[in-house]
Amino acid sequence: MKISTDRERSCPVTATLSVIGGRWKPIIIYTLSNGSKRFGQLAAFIPGISRKVLTDQLKELERDGLVLREEFKETPPRVEYSLTKKGASLGPVLLAMCEWGQEHLMNRAIEEKVLV
Amino acid sequence: MKISTDRERSCPVTATLSVIGGRWKPIIIYTLSNGSKRFGQLAAFIPGISRKVLTDQLKELERDGLVLREEFKETPPRVEYSLTKKGASLGPVLLAMCEWGQEHLMNRAIEEKVLV
Repeated sequence: MKISTDRERSCPVTATLSVIGGRWKPIIIYTLSNGSKRFGQLAAFIPGISRKVLTDQLKELERDGLVLREEFKETPPRVEYSLTKKGASLGPVLLAMCEWGQEHLMNRAIEEKVLV
Repeated sequence: MKISTDRERSCPVTATLSVIGGRWKPIIIYTLSNGSKRFGQLAAFIPGISRKVLTDQLKELERDGLVLREEFKETPPRVEYSLTKKGASLGPVLLAMCEWGQEHLMNRAIEEKVLV
């Protein structure tokens, strides 16, 4: 119960940041937004992420109800990750952050490079 | 130059999170969105923040071009903080995060409380 109590106390923006914040979660959510993926596929789509970090981030996303982990009893066993309805509903939030970042941070970085 | 190089490499969402992430920055930006404030006013509007953390967060927001610090040479000297145009442009981003948090995290917290 601790997590939800903390979230209740905090502002909704901080609560949202608590589930999508960090370096990898937005990229994982984005990668899953065009369909379910196996662990190895996710790792291949996200350069620079270690298997341990990806495992931990997926567990947190699953705990927060954004990602669904499904085991298929095949040989060899197959595990797939997909966005839940709640995870998919983050689309407009990520888009707003993406557009702001592109306009205000990526351009500035390029301008600074030209000026220096 | 390190910060902008890192931002260039990262996705725009991660870049946005790097300037507004953390527990306090969204609340500071929201508090400044309805007009400039003195340091003491900001501290009073944001319960639970220490003077040291508020000072550090304001310095980072100033460095990232989201907050303007103005010194007025009066007796006693007056310092005011306000949002820059870039800081104010974060409004829709924070609103999207706020609405998502209210719908998906605050309600769930309340539901959980009712169920337990």
